[in-house]
Amino acid sequence: MFYLIGLGLGDAKDITVKGLEVVKSAKRVYLEAYTSILTVGKEALEEFYGREIILADRDMVETESDTLLADSQNEDIAFLVVGDPFGATTHTDLVLRAKQNGIDYKVIHNASIMNAIGCCGLQLYNFGETISIVFWDDTWRPDSFYDKICNNLQRGMHTLCLLDIKVKEQSIENLMKGKKIYEPPRYMTVSTAAEQLMEIVTNKRSEESNELLLHEDSICVGVARVGADDQTICTSTLKSIVSHDLGGPLHSLVIPGHMHPLELDMLKLFTNSDDVIQKLNSMYT
Amino acid sequence: MFYLIGLGLGDAKDITVKGLEVVKSAKRVYLEAYTSILTVGKEALEEFYGREIILADRDMVETESDTLLADSQNEDIAFLVVGDPFGATTHTDLVLRAKQNGIDYKVIHNASIMNAIGCCGLQLYNFGETISIVFWDDTWRPDSFYDKICNNLQRGMHTLCLLDIKVKEQSIENLMKGKKIYEPPRYMTVSTAAEQLMEIVTNKRSEESNELLLHEDSICVGVARVGADDQTICTSTLKSIVSHDLGGPLHSLVIPGHMHPLELDMLKLFTNSDDVIQKLNSMYT
Repeated sequence: MFYLIGLGLGDAKDITVKGLEVVKSAKRVYLEAYTSILTVGKEALEEFYGREIILADRDMVETESDTLLADSQNEDIAFLVVGDPFGATTHTDLVLRAKQNGIDYKVIHNASIMNAIGCCGLQLYNFGETISIVFWDDTWRPDSFYDKICNNLQRGMHTLCLLDIKVKEQSIENLMKGKKIYEPPRYMTVSTAAEQLMEIVTNKRSEESNELLLHEDSICVGVARVGADDQTICTSTLKSIVSHDLGGPLHSLVIPGHMHPLELDMLKLFTNSDDVIQKLNSMYT
Repeated sequence: MFYLIGLGLGDAKDITVKGLEVVKSAKRVYLEAYTSILTVGKEALEEFYGREIILADRDMVETESDTLLADSQNEDIAFLVVGDPFGATTHTDLVLRAKQNGIDYKVIHNASIMNAIGCCGLQLYNFGETISIVFWDDTWRPDSFYDKICNNLQRGMHTLCLLDIKVKEQSIENLMKGKKIYEPPRYMTVSTAAEQLMEIVTNKRSEESNELLLHEDSICVGVARVGADDQTICTSTLKSIVSHDLGGPLHSLVIPGHMHPLELDMLKLFTNSDDVIQKLNSMYT
């Protein structure tokens, strides 16, 4: 059996009891290491599980799936994924490859940011489409996510913004030279995401005469290390959150739409700013 | 500390290791028993945890929160919730009451249907607004969820339909007589949800001349007992799924929007019908 096991969001102990049993008895244990991270590294997991773990990077999962799936017709192979196994398309691909090879699979689910974001107090069923904010560089500065946020706002829905992760990326120089030297991993902060959004707001303002649905003074919620002991949640305005440091990765940003009184009450727990509280107070209807 | 602990979706072993540690050492352990259910009952949990569990029904959570929160300034109290703790508004309310009383809280997240629905192969970030389908009766037959599904379809997004749960409901007769006698719990099946949707489709067709976005032959995915050993997933058409029996609760229904080839490949795993496969094949672009 090929097991896809969610690890949840915090540390080694966020695995489920069922997941841990499989890990302890499986023939091989892989850890997917490029779509997300825990607050602890491979070594901490190995110590807690009492097992050796094989790191599976994007290359391995996408091009060496046969190696990965080997023996799983007759033995248990465990593939660990931070969050829930179905957070990324490559895992779906792995399931399809398993089935093509006549291998049965089982999924052991866990929390992912897609549901744990409820920790900020906004109701999950009031969220619209989830968007991704990617790192801008000198030549590539996409802004289509702004319109998607506004689409959600128009219908009163909240938006979860997943922030870019760059792991095992090569510099253009090394890529061209064919050198497999990788840049240090980069995880987008709430501050950077807000900065990019602020720049889009400025551009839109110069282009459009209409009032903008998402602007400098819009309420937003930054979250960091959701599910970990040092989880941080910060309610602020878009322009102010640029200067908030929420600490280490991973970060996500939420743009609330129409809020129920209970949702407003919750957001107030996560700010000390009189301005922000006043703004929230004006939103009770 | 007041702990809100997600139990995940399957059985006793779907609790996280961290959650189990708190349950074992907490002063009191409550189980929220009205917004969702596991495939096993209170007794199985008590046996696995080696702890007595106090059932907390809606009345208790909403009107006796002081009893529930008592002692949590100085001791650990655990409040267990099927799925993830932030699936329902009443739990948000509990957090706010705790904070008002100067009590710290911690959330131990777990899988919920909101992210585990990825098991059907549809990507979570392609889902739009989640909707709820409620049981119709002779006098109350709301159909606004149909329009919400169509809103999602218009933008190519999938829709997760959560199906109604009736727990501890009184008959009108008993309610009027003030008798606290409760009807047996009812959990809406995929079949019933599809039946109600089919009736709405028929009504809309007689009212509107436009082509309907959601109709009898639309592809839909029924899921039952997600995360449990006997999880069932069925890809079908709306009209055909009416006669599919997916077994015991809980059920959910998904209406896919625009599908990526990988998503279509996955949906094919869950049908034996040539008609459905042919329909899916025609959707690759």
